[in-house]
Amino acid sequence: MNLKISDALSNVKRLNPIVHNITNYVTAHDVANIIIATGGSPIMTDEPEDVYDITTISNALNINIGTLNASSIKAMLIAGKRADELSHPILLDPVGAGASRLRTETAKRLLSEMKIAVVRGNISEIMALYSGCGHTKGVDANLKDAVTRQNLPSKIAFAKDFAKAFNTNVAISGPIDIVTDGATAFAVSNGVEMMGKITGSGCQLSGLMTAFLAANPLSPLEAALASTVMMGVAGEKAFATLEKDEGNATFSNRIIDAVFNISPETLLRDAKYETFK
Amino acid sequence: MNLKISDALSNVKRLNPIVHNITNYVTAHDVANIIIATGGSPIMTDEPEDVYDITTISNALNINIGTLNASSIKAMLIAGKRADELSHPILLDPVGAGASRLRTETAKRLLSEMKIAVVRGNISEIMALYSGCGHTKGVDANLKDAVTRQNLPSKIAFAKDFAKAFNTNVAISGPIDIVTDGATAFAVSNGVEMMGKITGSGCQLSGLMTAFLAANPLSPLEAALASTVMMGVAGEKAFATLEKDEGNATFSNRIIDAVFNISPETLLRDAKYETFK
Amino acid sequence: MNLKISDALSNVKRLNPIVHNITNYVTAHDVANIIIATGGSPIMTDEPEDVYDITTISNALNINIGTLNASSIKAMLIAGKRADELSHPILLDPVGAGASRLRTETAKRLLSEMKIAVVRGNISEIMALYSGCGHTKGVDANLKDAVTRQNLPSKIAFAKDFAKAFNTNVAISGPIDIVTDGATAFAVSNGVEMMGKITGSGCQLSGLMTAFLAANPLSPLEAALASTVMMGVAGEKAFATLEKDEGNATFSNRIIDAVFNISPETLLRDAKYETFK
Repeated sequence: MNLKISDALSNVKRLNPIVHNITNYVTAHDVANIIIATGGSPIMTDEPEDVYDITTISNALNINIGTLNASSIKAMLIAGKRADELSHPILLDPVGAGASRLRTETAKRLLSEMKIAVVRGNISEIMALYSGCGHTKGVDANLKDAVTRQNLPSKIAFAKDFAKAFNTNVAISGPIDIVTDGATAFAVSNGVEMMGKITGSGCQLSGLMTAFLAANPLSPLEAALASTVMMGVAGEKAFATLEKDEGNATFSNRIIDAVFNISPETLLRDAKYETFK
Repeated sequence: MNLKISDALSNVKRLNPIVHNITNYVTAHDVANIIIATGGSPIMTDEPEDVYDITTISNALNINIGTLNASSIKAMLIAGKRADELSHPILLDPVGAGASRLRTETAKRLLSEMKIAVVRGNISEIMALYSGCGHTKGVDANLKDAVTRQNLPSKIAFAKDFAKAFNTNVAISGPIDIVTDGATAFAVSNGVEMMGKITGSGCQLSGLMTAFLAANPLSPLEAALASTVMMGVAGEKAFATLEKDEGNATFSNRIIDAVFNISPETLLRDAKYETFK
Repeated sequence: MNLKISDALSNVKRLNPIVHNITNYVTAHDVANIIIATGGSPIMTDEPEDVYDITTISNALNINIGTLNASSIKAMLIAGKRADELSHPILLDPVGAGASRLRTETAKRLLSEMKIAVVRGNISEIMALYSGCGHTKGVDANLKDAVTRQNLPSKIAFAKDFAKAFNTNVAISGPIDIVTDGATAFAVSNGVEMMGKITGSGCQLSGLMTAFLAANPLSPLEAALASTVMMGVAGEKAFATLEKDEGNATFSNRIIDAVFNISPETLLRDAKYETFK
């Protein structure tokens, strides 16, 4: 591996990159706070007349289609084109791909019209983009599609195929996360089940990952791995603090708190992942 | 009563229904988290080109006009028509009806163009829809309109009239909540005054209630009662945990935490309501 | 000074003013909660067809261009014109002015087309509006522009010039806050550094300040000072409660909690500011 995950985090903290987010209004607040927590500087705008300038002053672009609309889709295309001109890394979070024609088609169009550094989604969304055979449950992954110890080899093979087909990196989030560039794959076992019980854990990871891409533009695979591990470690730490009577709202805040406090050394020490060549 | 409120909650947890929300951007995050907390799966979209598909894969529709706009109003009408075709329960939260012509007219139009299972709002909003005589204070109820022990009989009579006139169920939230289908009425005394000091307690209840409607589509009255009780019990539990120096932001999170932890048995045990035939 | 800051806060609590917010979807939730925490009643709407009526029933208007779009810009102009007709105080928060042409031009247009009671922003945004020489870092102030003990006199002179040029009051937020009407200036040293590590501390202050303006319409300078002090004191109190492992998400909630609990007496006692005539 070219870049240690701890160095990937150090670079975010050192460079304080600006992350342009075209994202949904449900989780935008948490996305902003988690980017700040890890050392980045977020800016949100989805107005077609505004995104060219904002992408220009930013270091990377996070496109999340969670509450896409006619105007924001235009903005995604303009911002993506500009990011491409500037060689800024672009992350695509295809929220709800497979749940509606508009979401699936928009995600595919974005994939075809700009250079996407990483596609990050749940397994059903990624399957829907590739083969039309995902069984998205709204914005949640379908249990039928879940990555398990048993089916890990076939899911890794699928992820590698996806990465090669679209000439991108892919990060599939779930109980076991898969991150691959088509050649090397990582299976990350950090994280806790309760992360599926908050809104926007995926959106938060996409924001976090884009901050890592912004600070490590030449190492997108390692940036995706490092941020995936970071989110998982943060989930573990947040879960460990939960007291009786606390629930998913407090848990959600504690994840961001944990990201705020995780140092490069802690990230390296607590990482749990396997590498598959 | 056909369905126990504890069974109404059990059904949400067992069925994990998908709830389509066309809602405002102020409280969308909390609405999503409270739906997850009670066992549902939320999805938000208000794009006219997206809502047909999303309503199709969902189990119920939550329409909240808190930050309505020209595009989202179109989406409400498309989604409502599709929900009707599929016999999905629809909840209408007429946020700020009475405060502007657009809000009042949009709420009335929605009531006339689709089958609304439950209208849930504060007393001023409901009065504004019925008689044009509510005194909405922005999005808050006017104190002049408040339901009290003294005026409870007349307010129940009003609520029953409303339900019969619009052929729907109505849930009026406030210090004493009224839930009725026009024949049977419930007066719920769960809850604490501080619930009026957070943004979106009403929006949260609407989201929660729609999850209950989704899992109990044949018992909308009981679903409305059970969710109203649940919100009140959650408010009580959240308030009991507040320490010196804590305020409305923490209280808001604790309500969602409480919903996350309330079991069907707790709900039944802590419920405080009277029935008026 | 005509009005004590403690009386400015008492007036908010006594009058419970309605604050119309045309604001961004990233921080709208916190803006609503902080307005409630201090004693106001928030309403958010940015639909051109809705804002005339909502501004009419409100006591002040908070315009924040954080996620401006073509439709919300129209709404800002309509609402501003109506607020002017009713002599309602208008606050302008030029989020990201200097970062894009659209933001800079929109902020300037708003300043020229309506009577703005207070412009509140970070130093880079205010510089961008005045001279085009701010170095906005996305929505964050650029360190090069920061107000320090050393450059305080020149920054106060700049702020006074700005206030006179635009015939308004200006509140520049940062490590040292400057509030001036062009004649008298205040330098507020309340607050803690960590307030720069949450999303929307500026947006929250703008909401809070508009509540103060609504309740003290004849004393905009004192309203701006009182709310600036209040935000700083709240930040100090929130920071004092932070425990090991807590981070920016919890800190953000605790600031609103602190605002909820600060009394007029506490505000007066903990205020730290100097006056420059």
